[in-house]
Amino acid sequence: MDVALLTVGDEVLAGETTNTNAAWLGRALTARGANVRRTVVVPDEEAVIADAIRELSERYDAVLVTGGLGPTPDDVTMAGVAAGLDRELVEHEDATRYVEEAGGYENAERNDALRRLPAGARVLPNAAGVAPGAAVETARARVYVLPGVPSEMKEMFEEVADEFAGTKRLVETVHANEPESALVDRIETARERFDVSVGSYPGDGVRLRVSGTDGDAVHAAAQWLRERVER
Amino acid sequence: MDVALLTVGDEVLAGETTNTNAAWLGRALTARGANVRRTVVVPDEEAVIADAIRELSERYDAVLVTGGLGPTPDDVTMAGVAAGLDRELVEHEDATRYVEEAGGYENAERNDALRRLPAGARVLPNAAGVAPGAAVETARARVYVLPGVPSEMKEMFEEVADEFAGTKRLVETVHANEPESALVDRIETARERFDVSVGSYPGDGVRLRVSGTDGDAVHAAAQWLRERVER
Repeated sequence: MDVALLTVGDEVLAGETTNTNAAWLGRALTARGANVRRTVVVPDEEAVIADAIRELSERYDAVLVTGGLGPTPDDVTMAGVAAGLDRELVEHEDATRYVEEAGGYENAERNDALRRLPAGARVLPNAAGVAPGAAVETARARVYVLPGVPSEMKEMFEEVADEFAGTKRLVETVHANEPESALVDRIETARERFDVSVGSYPGDGVRLRVSGTDGDAVHAAAQWLRERVER
Repeated sequence: MDVALLTVGDEVLAGETTNTNAAWLGRALTARGANVRRTVVVPDEEAVIADAIRELSERYDAVLVTGGLGPTPDDVTMAGVAAGLDRELVEHEDATRYVEEAGGYENAERNDALRRLPAGARVLPNAAGVAPGAAVETARARVYVLPGVPSEMKEMFEEVADEFAGTKRLVETVHANEPESALVDRIETARERFDVSVGSYPGDGVRLRVSGTDGDAVHAAAQWLRERVER
């Protein structure tokens, strides 16, 4: 399953917030066997969100959107998602019931915003906050709209996590205490011999990331490298 | 100046690495008055990088690419950038001279990769590492290719930082110790009255982010809010 992440927020683009939501979702999805193919960060602007959703939902099997739910005027994600999927943003029956049951905001007139979801959406409860999320199925993709507050996002993701189960891609890491340029031949040999991917990431030494869908091959390749690099 | 960031790396998509490079560049660019409008993360795949570069360089004034320079087979960023800009990847005279002068890799046969840049590129020296970066001008955009290792990326950005000077967008932050839903009217009033943007980010209380190009208006709006929210 090929997945895209869409992060909404001016503060992420300006670097005031580091995109830890995308990293957390990347790990959670990869662990379940989904393949995160793209992350896109856009500002809190309805038209820009709509364009991004249109494009991503036509190219990937699932799109997870985070950020821009809530009661303030810069929370325009639901409107953007609706527009991008050519759906109306409607006073949604299930969302209305959810807000009633869950209690909504202290300031009840803010609850209007929470009742509006794209037509045909499924309501996702917010166990750690107030604003509900949404899941929308299109002909090509499933689109999930989650909150931007990390604790709320994580709880809501757990609700839908099973929908991402797939062929697990396994990863092993080998640390090499050599310059990256010296490792090229061994990396190429490991790749070809075991039919795995090997990424190399310099930092404190070089981290070699062996991955593939065949666990035995990944393990054998990692072992082969471990025996041949300085550690 | 509207800017896009393109981060290259499987490990970022899988969440093994948090995209701190995009956050750092977001702050550095915003501080200089540039407007970061989009961040995109793509895998280490030449064709995908090429598509992303083509799209972003047609829509933004500048594109900053990080990651995937270096000597290993998963370092395909320069090839992707060249393809996306319809340029050849050539044995570049200045890059060849740069690698000679700077010393290149211990394992000299790896230096071949470092000499190849998109035709017509300007070489960007790597003060903290080995692989040089590149700057390429197109009819619409300037494209900068920087390393993924944060220390190298930051030093290389400083080399070109002056090219992003523009109208400064000023930001002030007000912390409110109230539920976000209670703040809506005051946020709307501040926006309209002072003609500024006001974002609101719940977490521990709510962070109100007042921004605009008129410093006096931003300051007055922040002050107006400070006097009217619980802190």
